[in-house]
Amino acid sequence: MRFSYVSHLYCPKCSATYSADEKNNLCSCGSPLLVSYDYNSLKEKWKKEDLLHREPNLWRYHELLPVKKKENIVSLGEGMTPLLSMGKLGEEYGITTLLMKDEGLIPTGSFKARGSAVGVSKAKELGVEELAMPTNGNAGAAWSLYAARAGIKSHIVMPKDAPMITRQEVHVAGADLKVIDGLISDAGKLVGEAVSEYGWFDVSTLKEPYRIEGKKTMGLEIAEQLNWELPDVILYPTGGGVGLIGIYKALKELAEIGWIEKEKLPRLVAVQAEGCAPIVKAFEAGGKDSEFWNDSVTAAFGINVPKALGDFLILEAIYETKGCAIAVSDEHILQEQHHIAEREGAFICPEGAATFAAAKKLRQDGWIKENETVICLNTGMGIKYPETVPMNVAVRSKTERL
Amino acid sequence: MRFSYVSHLYCPKCSATYSADEKNNLCSCGSPLLVSYDYNSLKEKWKKEDLLHREPNLWRYHELLPVKKKENIVSLGEGMTPLLSMGKLGEEYGITTLLMKDEGLIPTGSFKARGSAVGVSKAKELGVEELAMPTNGNAGAAWSLYAARAGIKSHIVMPKDAPMITRQEVHVAGADLKVIDGLISDAGKLVGEAVSEYGWFDVSTLKEPYRIEGKKTMGLEIAEQLNWELPDVILYPTGGGVGLIGIYKALKELAEIGWIEKEKLPRLVAVQAEGCAPIVKAFEAGGKDSEFWNDSVTAAFGINVPKALGDFLILEAIYETKGCAIAVSDEHILQEQHHIAEREGAFICPEGAATFAAAKKLRQDGWIKENETVICLNTGMGIKYPETVPMNVAVRSKTERL
Repeated sequence: MRFSYVSHLYCPKCSATYSADEKNNLCSCGSPLLVSYDYNSLKEKWKKEDLLHREPNLWRYHELLPVKKKENIVSLGEGMTPLLSMGKLGEEYGITTLLMKDEGLIPTGSFKARGSAVGVSKAKELGVEELAMPTNGNAGAAWSLYAARAGIKSHIVMPKDAPMITRQEVHVAGADLKVIDGLISDAGKLVGEAVSEYGWFDVSTLKEPYRIEGKKTMGLEIAEQLNWELPDVILYPTGGGVGLIGIYKALKELAEIGWIEKEKLPRLVAVQAEGCAPIVKAFEAGGKDSEFWNDSVTAAFGINVPKALGDFLILEAIYETKGCAIAVSDEHILQEQHHIAEREGAFICPEGAATFAAAKKLRQDGWIKENETVICLNTGMGIKYPETVPMNVAVRSKTERL
Repeated sequence: MRFSYVSHLYCPKCSATYSADEKNNLCSCGSPLLVSYDYNSLKEKWKKEDLLHREPNLWRYHELLPVKKKENIVSLGEGMTPLLSMGKLGEEYGITTLLMKDEGLIPTGSFKARGSAVGVSKAKELGVEELAMPTNGNAGAAWSLYAARAGIKSHIVMPKDAPMITRQEVHVAGADLKVIDGLISDAGKLVGEAVSEYGWFDVSTLKEPYRIEGKKTMGLEIAEQLNWELPDVILYPTGGGVGLIGIYKALKELAEIGWIEKEKLPRLVAVQAEGCAPIVKAFEAGGKDSEFWNDSVTAAFGINVPKALGDFLILEAIYETKGCAIAVSDEHILQEQHHIAEREGAFICPEGAATFAAAKKLRQDGWIKENETVICLNTGMGIKYPETVPMNVAVRSKTERL
């Protein structure tokens, strides 16, 4: 048995191939690169039972991850997050089986930990010494902390409106932090210039091929947690869309190696905010890629991405699984976030709450049927977004009776 | 097989016994009550292999937990947190195997989730409709969210200096929150009066017997994660001390049912802040209980507990395992907290950092030996304590080059 069955990188646009043993960013055609594995060998040699004695983290799937040597793994214990029943909400919505994959229970409190765990581990394996990225906050926090663990220097550029706590995370990790008066797209431009000038490794969303491999483990875990029977629908809050692309890739790979049935892939739903819905617009027009969304704004900051580099991959995943893209309002998002805490005891992030708002809407529209199994993906903890719970509580004297 | 082998409650001071099927708080003698199980049946019927197919959360040990019916479990997926290698720090300290049990990866981002998961589940089983507690923040957050999930109303009293985010957690859970100008001991008095007036169930630290059962699962997990070979030393940040008492109880129970060797219990270390060190003072005097610590103050707010109700149980656990109690300064705590993030990529809470500061000191003193296996218990995420990372970062123009 090999530790990893990674074979090479390939371009989903022009089919060019690249080595997985060298530092690579985008394809020469401008497309993101994806990672390929030796699926035939995996089908023959890797068995579900192999997982039985492994630790409950994402490295339990190391055969289907790109890190070749175990000693290059940089881990903070990420993965195998809970798949929780949300029975009260399901009853309200009229959905028999409503589940939440809770990515709050992961290092840094956000699903970004998955991409950075695998991305940083592979960067370490490839000899990267300095990395750089633009971020809406959570990714920067995760990458800078994992980079610190790996002994890699990180340069992080963040819009000033990103969640305040993520600045602290980047700072405490000892990273080089720049906060700008602009959007993630502006931060991306600055990083683009800097990486060519200073030779840092560019780990912007989809500009290196390994973050998606970390994210795809959400799909692997969902399949394993449901005992390799897939749900009918998975709703995912979509900014850069790496998680959705990753989940789709994971499910196709599981079908390829014969662990699940290819015909039964869940319908994937890209959930966006009404104030930033380029994928929804493209989907509604039947387009293959999206247009830049001007003056984007939403309280769900992690999905404030005006133009995703992997838009064509997101749309492909939606079309191929007979899924859809849907936008929800900030008002509805925040309302649902509070409602979920009160009813289900889960204080989730607004991006995660958006998927519940969308599930409710899709059920009302009849797109989701009553007896379907539906998974909402919560991408992070509510505690990273204190501003979503405005409150003004009076301080009482310690002798005043309750 | 029974779901739970709980048998009864008993008083560790006067040996009185009580039913585990009724609501009970303290013993009539004033002592906390502990939960007993049918250890003989467990020894005969419960096998380590039974755990193999169970989910990675604390309910995998349901036989040794007090909830009798599975349907009463109120879970947000808590437990089986990572046991991480802290190799770089270990090298600096001169400790060959330094590990961290990371209780940040749990609902609400704090180990308080364990006690509230089991406490709320049992409260539900016993028919509790309203509960009340004083809190230094994190416990209130956890209990109010789990109570919301259970459909139980909660009344939370919190000092104004408790971590700000915990107010939001309590509020978003829909709980009745009171913030007071005082300490947790003042909050405790108010709750004491209110529970007798309104008939709420008092879930103050150790005033109900089940929180400790949740906390003890840290000990069960450490044992399982080390394949039932115990470490030499476990360091625990000690305020109310429930976790330390719980870990000690867990290890004794595992020895009782024959899963570990009784002779090899780890030395338990109670770590306190210099500004609030009643257990350390009692330990140094060889006392069996502690005195109220006046004018207590520390940045590690969770361990600002001037007098623990279970002080005699904490001290017993220390003496019986040949452990110790040690105080560290706030300066050292915060220094170590930042250092751990930069070196190991883990942004932990100050209470957790205190255990590392203590490990370093005990190694320097020779109390910890180089070749020993040492576990530091981090009780929560650093992101709940933004004030521990002061920073002042200038916002740059989006066109200024990096």
